[in-house]
Amino acid sequence: MTYRAPVSDILFTMRHVAGFDRAATDGLFDDLSADLAATILEEAGKFANDVIAPLNREGDKRGVTFKDGAVTTTPGWKEAYKAWTEAGWNALPAPVEYGGQGLPVLLNSACVEMWNAASMAFGIGPVLTLGGIEALHVHGTEDLKSRYLAKLVSGEWTATMNLTEPQAGSDLAALRARAEPAGDGTYRITGQKIFITYGEHDMTDNIVHLVLARLPDAPAGTRGISLFLVPKILPDGTHNDVRCHSIEHKMGIHASPTCTMIFGDHGGAVGWIVGGENRGLNCMFTMMNNARLAVGLQGVAIAERAYQQALAYAHERRQGRAVGSTQEGMSPIIEHPDVQRSLLTMKALTAAARAICYLTAEGIDRSHRDKSETRRRKANERASLLTPVAKAFSTDIGVEVASLGIQVHGGMGFIEETGAAQHLRDARIAPIYEGTNGIQAIDLVVRKLPLSGGETVRAQIASMRATVTRVMKEGTSAFGATAPRLRDAIESLDRATGYLLKAVASNAPAEALAGATPYLRLFALAQGGAALADVALAAHALMEGGDKDSAHAARIALCRFFAENIAVGAKGLEETILSGADFLQDASLALAS
Amino acid sequence: MTYRAPVSDILFTMRHVAGFDRAATDGLFDDLSADLAATILEEAGKFANDVIAPLNREGDKRGVTFKDGAVTTTPGWKEAYKAWTEAGWNALPAPVEYGGQGLPVLLNSACVEMWNAASMAFGIGPVLTLGGIEALHVHGTEDLKSRYLAKLVSGEWTATMNLTEPQAGSDLAALRARAEPAGDGTYRITGQKIFITYGEHDMTDNIVHLVLARLPDAPAGTRGISLFLVPKILPDGTHNDVRCHSIEHKMGIHASPTCTMIFGDHGGAVGWIVGGENRGLNCMFTMMNNARLAVGLQGVAIAERAYQQALAYAHERRQGRAVGSTQEGMSPIIEHPDVQRSLLTMKALTAAARAICYLTAEGIDRSHRDKSETRRRKANERASLLTPVAKAFSTDIGVEVASLGIQVHGGMGFIEETGAAQHLRDARIAPIYEGTNGIQAIDLVVRKLPLSGGETVRAQIASMRATVTRVMKEGTSAFGATAPRLRDAIESLDRATGYLLKAVASNAPAEALAGATPYLRLFALAQGGAALADVALAAHALMEGGDKDSAHAARIALCRFFAENIAVGAKGLEETILSGADFLQDASLALAS
Repeated sequence: MTYRAPVSDILFTMRHVAGFDRAATDGLFDDLSADLAATILEEAGKFANDVIAPLNREGDKRGVTFKDGAVTTTPGWKEAYKAWTEAGWNALPAPVEYGGQGLPVLLNSACVEMWNAASMAFGIGPVLTLGGIEALHVHGTEDLKSRYLAKLVSGEWTATMNLTEPQAGSDLAALRARAEPAGDGTYRITGQKIFITYGEHDMTDNIVHLVLARLPDAPAGTRGISLFLVPKILPDGTHNDVRCHSIEHKMGIHASPTCTMIFGDHGGAVGWIVGGENRGLNCMFTMMNNARLAVGLQGVAIAERAYQQALAYAHERRQGRAVGSTQEGMSPIIEHPDVQRSLLTMKALTAAARAICYLTAEGIDRSHRDKSETRRRKANERASLLTPVAKAFSTDIGVEVASLGIQVHGGMGFIEETGAAQHLRDARIAPIYEGTNGIQAIDLVVRKLPLSGGETVRAQIASMRATVTRVMKEGTSAFGATAPRLRDAIESLDRATGYLLKAVASNAPAEALAGATPYLRLFALAQGGAALADVALAAHALMEGGDKDSAHAARIALCRFFAENIAVGAKGLEETILSGADFLQDASLALAS
Repeated sequence: MTYRAPVSDILFTMRHVAGFDRAATDGLFDDLSADLAATILEEAGKFANDVIAPLNREGDKRGVTFKDGAVTTTPGWKEAYKAWTEAGWNALPAPVEYGGQGLPVLLNSACVEMWNAASMAFGIGPVLTLGGIEALHVHGTEDLKSRYLAKLVSGEWTATMNLTEPQAGSDLAALRARAEPAGDGTYRITGQKIFITYGEHDMTDNIVHLVLARLPDAPAGTRGISLFLVPKILPDGTHNDVRCHSIEHKMGIHASPTCTMIFGDHGGAVGWIVGGENRGLNCMFTMMNNARLAVGLQGVAIAERAYQQALAYAHERRQGRAVGSTQEGMSPIIEHPDVQRSLLTMKALTAAARAICYLTAEGIDRSHRDKSETRRRKANERASLLTPVAKAFSTDIGVEVASLGIQVHGGMGFIEETGAAQHLRDARIAPIYEGTNGIQAIDLVVRKLPLSGGETVRAQIASMRATVTRVMKEGTSAFGATAPRLRDAIESLDRATGYLLKAVASNAPAEALAGATPYLRLFALAQGGAALADVALAAHALMEGGDKDSAHAARIALCRFFAENIAVGAKGLEETILSGADFLQDASLALAS
């Protein structure tokens, strides 16, 4: 069973949750119409289905090989990457002046979902290149830009992010890699970096490493970190003093090399500073925020892939006789209510996560493209608020949905040849990298809730309430208890938000930190439910207008399922958050080893 | 990091949740005192820690090999199994008249947890042998018993359960394997069986297959299934007409062979009937109920193992500076509230699942050993009610806890050498085999709730309420909101139970089936919370009595954490169940592929 890009659901979410049409009308997207977007998505879907997806299983089985410092990707991988760049997909959202197409982050997000659904191990590479492009475009000197951007935009070269060191994972303050000025404007970089995705590979002639390191006189902590561009191959064609020492043996995404990189075995790798001395963290955040959204999209992607595979199996596999079945013999297991619950849970979580990611993407687009500075600032804050939710919720549900996908397969799900197990193994990295989901939750509560004195989050809650009001007014019996259940979830979110804002403001960090993870989930349940209701309302309006597409009724059914079966978890999360940090007092006892 | 059997928590749960002391006082356990049980558990713990646990990682890496019909286990495996049987562990709960020690299921359950925490791939083999012993002991002829039981009890031979065929997994009615009477009292068995755990291996000289098959004149469906004993080696020393055709390439438990078995390539394997013609399902249920509890214990086991590993890592790994830390530099990550939440969630879920499994085990013991027939019957119904909860909840949380364990490790969790990933890969089979967790939930709602007209479940709910009353009376401030939160959860369970009992009684199967999975979880939250409160109350009483063991305060803290952070999910589950099966009407639309 391979992947079929769900282009029409994707487009529907872009238009009716993420406000594609409004943004287009507002002139944010130049001449990109919904029709043109649809055409581009269809083409991307075909590429994902026909070229990338067939490599996914083989990439898992064979993985990458490492010998004498060189990494060889799975057969077929190199060719697929080349075809992908030649079709222009890498350049989609990149700056026009360097050969990119300058298309919206929203459109590219839909594509990122598809590449990653086709193969997460394939999809993660370009995420890093795109991050490198952005950091360089915003913070690089003209000289660096002219030398590197065009080739990164075309995909002829790839980029990496070199942050992590053995003692410095989540805590970048602990970085030790060093950069010495060489006197000619360049630097000599030394140090070891671990977990470097696509740090070495055979798909391109050059690899552009973006490396965090400390200058000799740098202050301690994160304020003493600078960012350097360190190419594998120097402009004069010689090999830089950087090498891949080894690759990791991982649980999943076997086809993507995860490298330990050594800089400066022979006196130091030549690097150029990006963004000025001690400004590295700032530059890195430019890369990381977009990478966080992209990793959230990986969660959506793997969930969609797992759902499609489980759905196909449930239609085909026959066991038992379903209640009320009018057929002879065994029924397809999709007719059993408990299997339906599993599949609907998978589909509803996937759709909610997709909606949250696309909302975030639209916020990013508007933050760059709106004519009004006020709207840009508001959009930027909205995107900042939603980014940790997009990253953490989507990747959490990626794992949950992939696990449910195995379960739907029964015993076959545990057999590697089936492919369902790979999705869970692949999915499991996404809650970890680009900032663990715990860190996302802390970021949401400690840094994002207080934006504009809490106005940003309150405006977001107000927009969820407006959706519920519309459901009450426009919804039919097919919406079931959508309105009351969503309202309950949003009120829980509102109370929990007030509680945490107060905790943050009154310098009660333990309360805020203890409630962060359940709060992020609560936020996602309310936001995801509201977004699916937006989808359902749009579908309802189209049906009223005579549109006979059966997908519309399905959208209403999915919204209802989410509200009645998933959003109802909100109250328990609220109680957890409001019970505060008291449990921490005794935690040390309970966790004494 | 290896495993350390948590003997004192295990014993405490046996005594203060599962009523070991009362059962001993009632004379159910012959001369087994709590002290003797402690000694036995200490010894079992040592064996698990020192002999089995060190093999676990190697077993995962190397797995088993298959060549020319023969299966070779991981180096060291055979010797460990031999030492384990020679120490008498296989015989622990087995009938005395065949060389067993006749010790309680409760005591053996604690041991089963330890074997499986040390290595799930090791632990699953003896579970099947024990099932075979029970089926043979209850249903076998004297002749069969005298020929096979002693060697199965000693562990000199192992047993298998041959149920599944490609077209017949959850639905045994679809079985096709055939058995022809040979005229001499034996039968000739032909057919293919898949997913046969330890169907072939090199640890013992003989393997005793228990095989479901149909007689020529058997009725269709499950009423036409008979059980046969089919030894690999016949009494005359010749090889029976059965062979292993291939082994599966699985996501986890790599060291346990999962075989496709072919019976009757050369005219039919010689078999002896067990339990009479067309009585196979009945016999199989004897094996399966105990196997279900054992698989539940695997869930507890892998959760405990994952918790221990994550806990050790969190004490050791330093990142960031914790709020309020008085130490210089980076803090161990265990000092961060979000990591504490993860670890407490892992520990609390594990402890709750353990308590439910041990409660089930005590019910089984009393159902066999009590002098009063009424008490035996009631205990049997109680154990029947709890068995699907023990199996499904424990294995679900096994997956959840193992996944959290990876998360606590950050990037290291995704690297196979760390070992955390193996726990999730191993854990993932347990919700599937011995009846998927969906089937457990349906069994709970459709067959177990109606036991004694609903009296069995109502009595269980009453006992949970009694615990809450005691918490209200005896609890201190350290119990926090335990009483109100647990009471809410139990009242949710009570209402959902009433709703589902009515649905089952009024022949509304869709309502009952649609709510089954959330109901099982709801039941476990209330029962698990009440059981941890029993633990906490006992700890509190000991502290009042002057016992200074710091583990007691930790037990109260854990109970509180569960009530305030996990049991609070009950209300949402109740709402889901009470919203009924309406979502199914539109499900077909939402799930159209």
